[in-house]
Amino acid sequence: MGQTKARTLKGFRDYLPEVEIPRTRMLRRVVRVFESFGFSPLATPAIEYADILLGKSGDEGDKLLYRFEDNGGRDVALRYDLTVPLARVVGQYGNLDKPFKRYQIAPVWRAEKPARGRFREFVQCDVDIVGEASVRADAECMMVGLEVLKACEVPKYEMRVNHRGILHGMLDRAGIEDASQRMTSLRALDKLDKMGKEKVVAELKDAVGLDASAIASLFEVVERPIRNLNELRQLQAFFGVHERGSQGAESLLELVTILEEAGYADQVRVDLSIARGLDYYTGTVYETFIVGHEEYGSVMSGGRYDEMIGLYAKQGQPAVGICLGVDRLISALQDMGLLSEDTGTADVYVTLFEEADFGHNAGFARKLREVGLSVEMSMSAKKLGKQFKAAERKGCRFVVMIGDDERAQEVVQIKDMATGEQESVKTLDAPNWLTERVLGT
Amino acid sequence: MGQTKARTLKGFRDYLPEVEIPRTRMLRRVVRVFESFGFSPLATPAIEYADILLGKSGDEGDKLLYRFEDNGGRDVALRYDLTVPLARVVGQYGNLDKPFKRYQIAPVWRAEKPARGRFREFVQCDVDIVGEASVRADAECMMVGLEVLKACEVPKYEMRVNHRGILHGMLDRAGIEDASQRMTSLRALDKLDKMGKEKVVAELKDAVGLDASAIASLFEVVERPIRNLNELRQLQAFFGVHERGSQGAESLLELVTILEEAGYADQVRVDLSIARGLDYYTGTVYETFIVGHEEYGSVMSGGRYDEMIGLYAKQGQPAVGICLGVDRLISALQDMGLLSEDTGTADVYVTLFEEADFGHNAGFARKLREVGLSVEMSMSAKKLGKQFKAAERKGCRFVVMIGDDERAQEVVQIKDMATGEQESVKTLDAPNWLTERVLGT
Repeated sequence: MGQTKARTLKGFRDYLPEVEIPRTRMLRRVVRVFESFGFSPLATPAIEYADILLGKSGDEGDKLLYRFEDNGGRDVALRYDLTVPLARVVGQYGNLDKPFKRYQIAPVWRAEKPARGRFREFVQCDVDIVGEASVRADAECMMVGLEVLKACEVPKYEMRVNHRGILHGMLDRAGIEDASQRMTSLRALDKLDKMGKEKVVAELKDAVGLDASAIASLFEVVERPIRNLNELRQLQAFFGVHERGSQGAESLLELVTILEEAGYADQVRVDLSIARGLDYYTGTVYETFIVGHEEYGSVMSGGRYDEMIGLYAKQGQPAVGICLGVDRLISALQDMGLLSEDTGTADVYVTLFEEADFGHNAGFARKLREVGLSVEMSMSAKKLGKQFKAAERKGCRFVVMIGDDERAQEVVQIKDMATGEQESVKTLDAPNWLTERVLGT
Repeated sequence: MGQTKARTLKGFRDYLPEVEIPRTRMLRRVVRVFESFGFSPLATPAIEYADILLGKSGDEGDKLLYRFEDNGGRDVALRYDLTVPLARVVGQYGNLDKPFKRYQIAPVWRAEKPARGRFREFVQCDVDIVGEASVRADAECMMVGLEVLKACEVPKYEMRVNHRGILHGMLDRAGIEDASQRMTSLRALDKLDKMGKEKVVAELKDAVGLDASAIASLFEVVERPIRNLNELRQLQAFFGVHERGSQGAESLLELVTILEEAGYADQVRVDLSIARGLDYYTGTVYETFIVGHEEYGSVMSGGRYDEMIGLYAKQGQPAVGICLGVDRLISALQDMGLLSEDTGTADVYVTLFEEADFGHNAGFARKLREVGLSVEMSMSAKKLGKQFKAAERKGCRFVVMIGDDERAQEVVQIKDMATGEQESVKTLDAPNWLTERVLGT
């Protein structure tokens, strides 16, 4: 075999330990929050029949699919998100207990143009509730999302919520009836945050083809501030005969009331400009921004999609979910200097004096691991100074030394790298001695 | 959009919550053990340039690759294992701190003929040590493997170890010089456990083309029992001039001594018939069987592969690793009735009396979650009996009831589903009251 040039596929990335350690730590916290709300894990294959995925996320989604023929000539594709596979599972297994509350944390693939911080493979962390039509399910998804950001130590965040009914009421009220115009109008409005009003107005005029009065009518809604429950009630009245709008406002009223009663008032805001790009949403839609760092975009988004499961089953099911883009959140925290990078996973480093001591040391390390400590062992009897350097690079707080004298006296020398103090500890006492100090820090 | 028939891709499977809950629990234990030895996580993309993967796992491996052209016309493939991507990473990032000890837990894809318990996507859990040539690294991989099986509550297991040097010494001694014959001989011998001696002898004679005396010479080694360190010393002498054999025996002697000193003697056995199918091994090879259930095959395998990293870098690196096939282990434990299937992740179920109570209940649930409890909330105010049934199906130990009277008196009713007892607890005391009982069980 000749030599192969080692390189990562274009648009993809490796997560080396210094980033992967905090990333897995964050994912563990996410799992804990998901499970603390009673969500159960589900795993689905990375590859699906192409027809399962096609047409579910719009034309744009279809273009981004990694689609190919498998060795058996089947038309297959890598999953684009975790929502469509969930809908497939619910359609396929008719007997799932409802409400079906599942979480899934897994990579998805999209053949997007690579850009800074945007890769073709990224991990999504989704929770969804299937089989519950009330806004209580929407509220639960939003609450779990807010708790995730708290657990990930994001300093300040805000979830902005809207309702597709309000968007439809707004389109109805503006007299926009053509289905394609309605969709392109929403897509244009969705870019308000990024592009600013002027460009969006230009797009609505030139690309969508709306007249000035229709555009003004849209902005009358989009720019309407909703600062409290009372302004939501006024919005409901404002829509009047445009039923979808008033019903959307009513849903939001109910939803926000729950969130306030549960103690999340300061973390949630109604924002009538939130539209969400995906076509499949039918009710609430929400996005979450890091306050003061809105430029990273939404780190946690979702909404209600009551019509998707019906695409795979005779009997449809109401569904609502939220998705954390963990890689985007990690990037943001990293740029903000809020991600503590760990260089190792061990608390204790056991040095090696003589190569022949390794078996004995391993027996000692075993006793430490039995009480829950994490122990890295030196595998070479190089100079002690070098071994201490290695322990330091790996971020081990304690370094253990076991020479012939120590073995004879059944003690070990332990150096605390934080204080510089060194102590002789009975071998039998070492597991407790270390546990107290490691867990006590 | 028309309706799409919901189905899982042929050769793939979904993990519904009742299996995925114990599976994720097991994976968490695996991570804990990996980290307790100081291994750090690494993540690499699912997709690699095809040339990175081709030719590394033999012709058979190449045939099983999911290989396709990406949207940019690149020749790419899904990873076949986690060892080759690790070798690529080490070759690519020259400055990794050595020994580089990483773990990776991720799915791999192989277009194998589907069979009972064999799927085209499965999760591998790998630890590898790069940059340490001594058998101390081999010993550490074996120890971490044995601790993983202990943590996964496998009742009895045995790791069988051999050394490629011994296999080469055996081939040298039998006078088999042709490279292709050597390889096919090893492949035939590797099937001894599955096919029995008669069939292997037939294959060595007919397919490989060995004569009777060569075959006898092979079996003289393969069937040689090694029950203690002394028999290993005798094996070393037995090889005499066939250096690779005697050096292999010496390495095993050193390795087994370490494992005995560290307290793993009863879990490890030298077995000279272990060959491992993959071509890339250069030193120790090991497989692990569930004692009494050897029919499931090896659940944890690995070995030393000192020449692979040199395929991606000017400077090679010694490397050794071990891989848990978690799905195979789960299947085995499930068949043996040793996998406790959980139906939910919550400890506490909060019932709903009136729909309007949901926000208040969510505030209460929030307090419970803050102290680490896992809480599922009823989202519909259906009959209480139905809500209790739901709590039971989800495996919640405690059910909380909060009616108007309770709210007025600032108490909650808590029923312990295990004992059937019900108690009135002050709302403020409920988090502690429940924590004590949930953690105390």
